[in-house]
Amino acid sequence: MNLEGILSDVGRNLRSSLIRELLKYASVPGSISFGGGVPDPNTFPRHELAEIAKEVIEKEYAYTLQYNTTEGDDQLATQIVKLLERTYGITGVGRENLLFTTGSQQALDLIARVLLDKDSICFVEFPVYLGAASAFRMTFTRFESVPLEEDGMDVNYLEKKLEELDKNGLIKKVKFIYTVPNFHNPAGVTMSLEKRKRLIEIAEKYDILILEDDPYGMLRFEGEHLPSLYKLAGPDRVVLLNTFSKILTPGLRIGIIIGRADIVRKATMAKQAADLCSPSLNQRIAARYLERYDLFEQLKPGIELYRKKKDVMIKALEENFADIKGAKWVNPQGGLFIWLTLPEGFDTMEMFEIAKEKKIYYIPGEAFTIDDGKSSSMRLSFCLPPEEKIVEGVKRLREVVEEYGKKKGLI
Amino acid sequence: MNLEGILSDVGRNLRSSLIRELLKYASVPGSISFGGGVPDPNTFPRHELAEIAKEVIEKEYAYTLQYNTTEGDDQLATQIVKLLERTYGITGVGRENLLFTTGSQQALDLIARVLLDKDSICFVEFPVYLGAASAFRMTFTRFESVPLEEDGMDVNYLEKKLEELDKNGLIKKVKFIYTVPNFHNPAGVTMSLEKRKRLIEIAEKYDILILEDDPYGMLRFEGEHLPSLYKLAGPDRVVLLNTFSKILTPGLRIGIIIGRADIVRKATMAKQAADLCSPSLNQRIAARYLERYDLFEQLKPGIELYRKKKDVMIKALEENFADIKGAKWVNPQGGLFIWLTLPEGFDTMEMFEIAKEKKIYYIPGEAFTIDDGKSSSMRLSFCLPPEEKIVEGVKRLREVVEEYGKKKGLI
Repeated sequence: MNLEGILSDVGRNLRSSLIRELLKYASVPGSISFGGGVPDPNTFPRHELAEIAKEVIEKEYAYTLQYNTTEGDDQLATQIVKLLERTYGITGVGRENLLFTTGSQQALDLIARVLLDKDSICFVEFPVYLGAASAFRMTFTRFESVPLEEDGMDVNYLEKKLEELDKNGLIKKVKFIYTVPNFHNPAGVTMSLEKRKRLIEIAEKYDILILEDDPYGMLRFEGEHLPSLYKLAGPDRVVLLNTFSKILTPGLRIGIIIGRADIVRKATMAKQAADLCSPSLNQRIAARYLERYDLFEQLKPGIELYRKKKDVMIKALEENFADIKGAKWVNPQGGLFIWLTLPEGFDTMEMFEIAKEKKIYYIPGEAFTIDDGKSSSMRLSFCLPPEEKIVEGVKRLREVVEEYGKKKGLI
Repeated sequence: MNLEGILSDVGRNLRSSLIRELLKYASVPGSISFGGGVPDPNTFPRHELAEIAKEVIEKEYAYTLQYNTTEGDDQLATQIVKLLERTYGITGVGRENLLFTTGSQQALDLIARVLLDKDSICFVEFPVYLGAASAFRMTFTRFESVPLEEDGMDVNYLEKKLEELDKNGLIKKVKFIYTVPNFHNPAGVTMSLEKRKRLIEIAEKYDILILEDDPYGMLRFEGEHLPSLYKLAGPDRVVLLNTFSKILTPGLRIGIIIGRADIVRKATMAKQAADLCSPSLNQRIAARYLERYDLFEQLKPGIELYRKKKDVMIKALEENFADIKGAKWVNPQGGLFIWLTLPEGFDTMEMFEIAKEKKIYYIPGEAFTIDDGKSSSMRLSFCLPPEEKIVEGVKRLREVVEEYGKKKGLI
């Protein structure tokens, strides 16, 4: 039997993640990788989680080892309601406004499934978080990309595009505007308060939903916390996605959809058909952890660790890239990523071949485009390598850039 | 914003599970429920799992609390390869033939996503396992239902249908034949060896994939283990789905797709976009458990427990329903379900109102039809209630049937 002959449109259209392919090389001995966006395992409260896991399996086995409800653990929901108030000042969230998912990747997929059709339009940022793009792409939706500036989405561009679509009678096809407002992956930028307000105004004008994805919001190194879009505009306008992956541990695979009861209900029905439920064990472990420990306190050493590593990388970039005319980078106020842009003409995907030789790995900007467009940018993650490797890695990167630049006559 | 206006076709078409709705009543005090198909928590090896969980979080935190690969844990894969040989006599399974999913519900969803389009045709059994129907339905595929007989699928009917589709030039639209060959949910029947062979012949004649779902195969009370379709026909023809939910614990949410490398690869890519990965913690716990304990030995008391309960229910049915002409039930050789069919004219959904009054719950056959067709059958699960409740429950059920039957002039 020939598989090609029986694949669905979705099946035919699937492609392997570029990041996955590239990161295969990162395990070569002597490599330094700025590739993966995974947290440092030393930030995981393993002793506490180990104790809790044992306890909730022993004592609450009839729940933790049994099927879960599709909505997920009520005890975790209680903790999340408290956490949302403390983190965002969000109040009034009820059980019917919460759905626990398998990481926020599943949240993205479920929202896409219940909202996007082949002829739908969804707005994303450019560069785009590629997990979102890959989930949305399964519906064959049309993408509109809004460029990111240093203070977030180019809202004027967004408005112009929406105006155009409205004129062409297509505004009803627009299902949502997807944004990562804090410490964007990959771009590192944070949306200013002014732009948050403008974005909401525009969304209200055209009656369009905002999908706010905030995995990194609690990982702020400096500057003031900005109000979330959900807090500013309320649940009628905004669906907020969150996750424990960056603030506790990715291994539990807990994502959260916070939104209007009707949207959450539809996503819940889709989840029921998609995987019935996520494991109760993992959710109860997280619930107990939040009951017993102060997540904000626990996060402090991790944030400090990342802040230091970020500073080391920024300093190394200043030392090694300041003399390359046209090179620029974002100094993020939090999160896990620095976005480095090289002068025009650089193709960071093509350049990756030289990087492989020098055993330094990054993610080419091309991975964060909708159409696999060439890119002179790259995503650098500082969260995993130790400080001395960050310094050494940036030096290697400079050599890569120099070799490629000279070969191409770009520098 | 009006949600209806922005829902996708999938979003609009979703419906809440009938079972979920019905089981809400089962928590009323004094109720006896034959509804849910969930295992008895006393069969879960909680002490062993608690110890293992603590250990793998403490010692292997860099794996168990970190992102997993999409394919899942390699150590669990090693154990599964051994288990497949021991359970089914299946050999030659490599890492590239295995994908771990979030329960077998996700396996069903992923297979549907990569194979089914709106104009596809898939064959299911009648009655159908409703989890499969709800996953497949999200693709808007066309269903063809093959009636179940006491020895499994009516293969003559299947052949006739395929012949028809072939004549009408539609055979290429048929993507797979879905079957639960052992201790069917809900029908309780097991496909005979003869029919297994015939099914494979037919599938080969028309070059159609078989999707074999075997969650209950290891829960055999009596009779001889029959070879799986995968074992008989090989991986080119059959994709085998399995799960830990009924043989270890549903709480871990571990399902498995075993199949051709090209199909597994496509399902893996779909999973990557759907939820990135299932939790490494849960998979590593299962891997350690299988390394250290003999699953077959561990299962024995659980099987014995279910066998006894099944016998109690069969005896109670004989005592209470033998005098109702036209009532019949399947005595299953394993699994969790008995399928009770009442005389023509009974509508077990309508009758459910009386059952609620008498606090006895079952799942009406209608839940296991593709088109919500009326049904005189019901699914009775014997796995959860203690023996005395099974006896009492069947008595109540008899009262329900009598009251409804008299009211409708059926008995």
